[in-house]
Amino acid sequence: MKALILKEKNKLAIEDFESDERLGPDDVRIGIKNVGICGSDVHYYLHGRIGDFVVEKPMVLGHEASGVVLEVGSKVKHLEAGDRVCMEPGIPAPGSPSVLSGQYNLDPAVRFWATPPIHGCMRESVVHPAAFTFKLPENVSFEEGALVEPLAIGVYSADTAAIRPGDVALVFGAGTIGIVTALAALASGCAKVLLADIKQKKLDVVRSNFSGNVVCVNSAKESLEDAVSGLAPEGVDIVFEASGSPAITGSFVRYLRPGGRAVMIGMPAGPAPFDVVAAQAKEIRIMHIFRYRNMYPRTVKMISSGTLKVAPLVTQRYDFKDAVKAFDFAASMPEDAIKVMVGM
Amino acid sequence: MKALILKEKNKLAIEDFESDERLGPDDVRIGIKNVGICGSDVHYYLHGRIGDFVVEKPMVLGHEASGVVLEVGSKVKHLEAGDRVCMEPGIPAPGSPSVLSGQYNLDPAVRFWATPPIHGCMRESVVHPAAFTFKLPENVSFEEGALVEPLAIGVYSADTAAIRPGDVALVFGAGTIGIVTALAALASGCAKVLLADIKQKKLDVVRSNFSGNVVCVNSAKESLEDAVSGLAPEGVDIVFEASGSPAITGSFVRYLRPGGRAVMIGMPAGPAPFDVVAAQAKEIRIMHIFRYRNMYPRTVKMISSGTLKVAPLVTQRYDFKDAVKAFDFAASMPEDAIKVMVGM
Amino acid sequence: MKALILKEKNKLAIEDFESDERLGPDDVRIGIKNVGICGSDVHYYLHGRIGDFVVEKPMVLGHEASGVVLEVGSKVKHLEAGDRVCMEPGIPAPGSPSVLSGQYNLDPAVRFWATPPIHGCMRESVVHPAAFTFKLPENVSFEEGALVEPLAIGVYSADTAAIRPGDVALVFGAGTIGIVTALAALASGCAKVLLADIKQKKLDVVRSNFSGNVVCVNSAKESLEDAVSGLAPEGVDIVFEASGSPAITGSFVRYLRPGGRAVMIGMPAGPAPFDVVAAQAKEIRIMHIFRYRNMYPRTVKMISSGTLKVAPLVTQRYDFKDAVKAFDFAASMPEDAIKVMVGM
Amino acid sequence: MKALILKEKNKLAIEDFESDERLGPDDVRIGIKNVGICGSDVHYYLHGRIGDFVVEKPMVLGHEASGVVLEVGSKVKHLEAGDRVCMEPGIPAPGSPSVLSGQYNLDPAVRFWATPPIHGCMRESVVHPAAFTFKLPENVSFEEGALVEPLAIGVYSADTAAIRPGDVALVFGAGTIGIVTALAALASGCAKVLLADIKQKKLDVVRSNFSGNVVCVNSAKESLEDAVSGLAPEGVDIVFEASGSPAITGSFVRYLRPGGRAVMIGMPAGPAPFDVVAAQAKEIRIMHIFRYRNMYPRTVKMISSGTLKVAPLVTQRYDFKDAVKAFDFAASMPEDAIKVMVGM
Repeated sequence: MKALILKEKNKLAIEDFESDERLGPDDVRIGIKNVGICGSDVHYYLHGRIGDFVVEKPMVLGHEASGVVLEVGSKVKHLEAGDRVCMEPGIPAPGSPSVLSGQYNLDPAVRFWATPPIHGCMRESVVHPAAFTFKLPENVSFEEGALVEPLAIGVYSADTAAIRPGDVALVFGAGTIGIVTALAALASGCAKVLLADIKQKKLDVVRSNFSGNVVCVNSAKESLEDAVSGLAPEGVDIVFEASGSPAITGSFVRYLRPGGRAVMIGMPAGPAPFDVVAAQAKEIRIMHIFRYRNMYPRTVKMISSGTLKVAPLVTQRYDFKDAVKAFDFAASMPEDAIKVMVGM
Repeated sequence: MKALILKEKNKLAIEDFESDERLGPDDVRIGIKNVGICGSDVHYYLHGRIGDFVVEKPMVLGHEASGVVLEVGSKVKHLEAGDRVCMEPGIPAPGSPSVLSGQYNLDPAVRFWATPPIHGCMRESVVHPAAFTFKLPENVSFEEGALVEPLAIGVYSADTAAIRPGDVALVFGAGTIGIVTALAALASGCAKVLLADIKQKKLDVVRSNFSGNVVCVNSAKESLEDAVSGLAPEGVDIVFEASGSPAITGSFVRYLRPGGRAVMIGMPAGPAPFDVVAAQAKEIRIMHIFRYRNMYPRTVKMISSGTLKVAPLVTQRYDFKDAVKAFDFAASMPEDAIKVMVGM
Repeated sequence: MKALILKEKNKLAIEDFESDERLGPDDVRIGIKNVGICGSDVHYYLHGRIGDFVVEKPMVLGHEASGVVLEVGSKVKHLEAGDRVCMEPGIPAPGSPSVLSGQYNLDPAVRFWATPPIHGCMRESVVHPAAFTFKLPENVSFEEGALVEPLAIGVYSADTAAIRPGDVALVFGAGTIGIVTALAALASGCAKVLLADIKQKKLDVVRSNFSGNVVCVNSAKESLEDAVSGLAPEGVDIVFEASGSPAITGSFVRYLRPGGRAVMIGMPAGPAPFDVVAAQAKEIRIMHIFRYRNMYPRTVKMISSGTLKVAPLVTQRYDFKDAVKAFDFAASMPEDAIKVMVGM
Repeated sequence: MKALILKEKNKLAIEDFESDERLGPDDVRIGIKNVGICGSDVHYYLHGRIGDFVVEKPMVLGHEASGVVLEVGSKVKHLEAGDRVCMEPGIPAPGSPSVLSGQYNLDPAVRFWATPPIHGCMRESVVHPAAFTFKLPENVSFEEGALVEPLAIGVYSADTAAIRPGDVALVFGAGTIGIVTALAALASGCAKVLLADIKQKKLDVVRSNFSGNVVCVNSAKESLEDAVSGLAPEGVDIVFEASGSPAITGSFVRYLRPGGRAVMIGMPAGPAPFDVVAAQAKEIRIMHIFRYRNMYPRTVKMISSGTLKVAPLVTQRYDFKDAVKAFDFAASMPEDAIKVMVGM
């Protein structure tokens, strides 16, 4: 089959790919329909590595995908050929302590698409465990199906925050993850969400495409303190940190109400100064998250019911044959784009 | 001042009322604007009692109210004359163990409007603790302000349920409380809410006024099992019991998924059979609630942001001078009415 | 090998048993050292069934066991031959939705020792998944290892109750499960635990063997209300229902403080009347449990550290050759016995 | 009456003190029996301030106290003259938003003994709200009553950590707060607690006075990694940070298991570097605490039942007439002392 292969840093091509995947009794074979391009895909393309994960052999990219079931293993009951599906890209080891304790995303043995040395899914077909393959309702498109992966991070952030009805949240960072977190927070009970960034074009895209209950603030031009106190005089209930900026790690506590909580999603490049005493005075709780778990069925339901309206997230579309162009566009970091989507 | 006074069972009249309320340093005096009629008001009107609470002296009715601040006590800081407000009707004893442990609604010393022997608020003005008086944003009407009280029960139910993003809930009972619970559950993160009743007119009112994500089921005509399994094949995540029917106490477990939870809002007339073993097989958690606490600010924010759209709840309006007529209408239990609202 | 086989109701014998178990790569083979006799084993012996679980073919009994690892599968890393171990008897299907959501005990496909048609472990050796086999520290005996199974129910009850430091609990039922729940509640933060039963001999055994912080009450002779109000004037923080009595399901709420919670462990024979309104007035939370999950490592640590002192639970000992006698003794329901232990 | 008065930095004397306290209807007057000396008392003595709290007028020191009720206000029901009591030193404003939301310790209006400009309790008698005065059982001594204040911090830390049965915890810092946190963690369900410090004498005092389940580690001489992995190969369940060391803020995550949590009790002098990404890889949860709330009744029960054995905490005793000497001793920071207690 054809696949988009990262041969080494900066060398990307559509080439023949021979998979050694076998369809086990609990697996399904899926013909891929849509794959979104994630920042991590672009990072491997440009740098050949993310931290300790180094691309040492040619690797298929892509982990945000939807498709159609082609074939099912002998024990699979909840899926059949022809089903429209989306796929969760990280597979833990069965029976590991992390799995049994309900935290399968923390299993050190997780195999995750397009994380070396595991091949990704931007190819004609994949074999995948049925337990991590989820049927799409008729009113959820293949593009929306491919968006479930990044959305799951936002929904997991919202779930981790244990949002209470009427909470006001503040999201730092209007990148894709910040945006989906803001949307998920609203869909999960927040009355209002402030979205702060310093890139005006990012905020403009959000403002023109999403609910007015996402209140955009350009924190380089406007006072974030004022924006917060206008909506939440005692401080916001929740901070979602999705910027990865060390400066924000060092300052977010000031925007929280006493008893507030923070979810740390963005990944700063190194240790950042944190004021423990300021956090104690407000009894702040901080939750750190790693990817997500058990979020695919919830996210699909939220898209299907319309509580998460996500179609506007796709700002550019490319055919698979132009996938290298799609990556080059994504690599140019265009501020007015959100998600670049490849159709197979 | 004039007040609507229940003199004894079945005897209701607008009469002169002399209040002995004094404005303390932490109090505000409020001119009443709207008062909604609650089932408990009607019950006192028709029966002169609810359980152990007996109307032994003439008592002003009404506890769902909004108004305008007329005067503030010397220590009040967050309110001033002219502020548009809504008022929480139950006042605990300061410093009681229930208050200090964060459960002020469970304080046995709570004084609650229109619960004998405490006078209610269907009168020209009241004196009320500022701590239980909440400012209404400009875009929240006085009628919506008066609706905050019943809504607070729905929001508290949703808060108690600890709704997770994308949950599917099943509400039993399409009375006012069932409806506001369904709306609150949707606004708090549910993807879909099933609302079950056996009165078609009740369901018709809901269907024509509220979001399609509230899915109405006439459980006398349709299979509730089928309705549930269509939306949630393994069972719903949450049941909200707002019917007060003993038969439902005995049967709701079957509609829940393993690990599901139930919030008990409706008040059955006596003990109801419950199958412990069936609940064990699914590890069901059951939360019982009593009124609400800390829900007014949240509810006001949800109305203001539009995540709770509640204007259609008011189906009948009466002037204060016709308050007795309003009560007689409410006492006729019209199935196509939701909330009867009195304007002062 | 030899095994204790229930051939049909009332027919129990030690006979040759040919196992078809194969040692898979993630399995271990274990030589059995001790097996405790559980009420369910006795029930199958006397009645040939428990509810829908019917003994239709000869079945090996026993599910509370410890042993020594004889052989390990090719992928097993945390165990080796010679390790002293205890074994969790219920194995879920890998990758099932219940497993992935962290509730493996609720997986409908669980295979549980000595629950028809699955053979139990009162035999010379078993093959078992390494993930459900736990190493015993040197200071934990084989008998204590076999006690981990019933103890896990008590520890899971305590864990489910989310005991807070200094809580006072009330346990109904001084059978083995009631006793281990009382011990686990004390070891998990309770300051005092009331243990109520109507069988004086049961209470005497507890009184003479365990900490004075387990306060025994014969509720047939003494006032339980008085006993509760002596220790917890506003009511206990937690009720553990381990009697299975429908009368207690209908009455336990009265002993709880406002905001209290109950864990339902005992299994009444049928639906029991429950007073929803009484539970609402106190905002009671009720948690139902089914067996346990993730409790073996915790329980082993608690025994090893001495926070759970469990050796006195074994009140009778039999050699494997006398296992039928051991069952006949257990079947006589002696009130002064707690756990009958068989040594291999 | 006589009182120990800090007249200004470094000037401490027992002098006549005229209190303007009046006994309100909800108050009690208490004759003081014991007062423990806290590090904050010593800090005011030596530096005349703690952060923004500056001693500008003479102030009575002391906030850890027990005594005997001398007189009760007209509305007080749960206490009477002659009752032996301990007193919670921080009083919030009745009806404040923090109080109503169940977080009275976070009320900015809290008045706390010996925190300028509020007088402390090292004097013959005090008037105190009955709601914050707690009866001591007969088997709890006045000294133990005075210890309830520092113990409450440990119990609140344990409560905040939501300890699960069999957890293993690591406490940084063997000062008084670290020690009481270790004891509280054990009494709240931990199987073992590691206590790490670099002062050998501190650890020796602990080792010779408390349960062997508090495992002392001199982290300057021994490998803390080895000590942790010996008890908890995947990392400890909980870290309690009670050292206030910025270096530990920057490093504690490495000792936690995936899904672990940390409670921040110590107060570093300034911002400390924190590695967000390391915390994300393990999904660490961090809870910051400020003093305590609702812990007095729980702590008293734990002392009374013996689950908290605290008598050995008092290592030095002084009569009130020698209170200045007691402060000078405490100010010398003796490493083999834990709590210096003054008797009235």
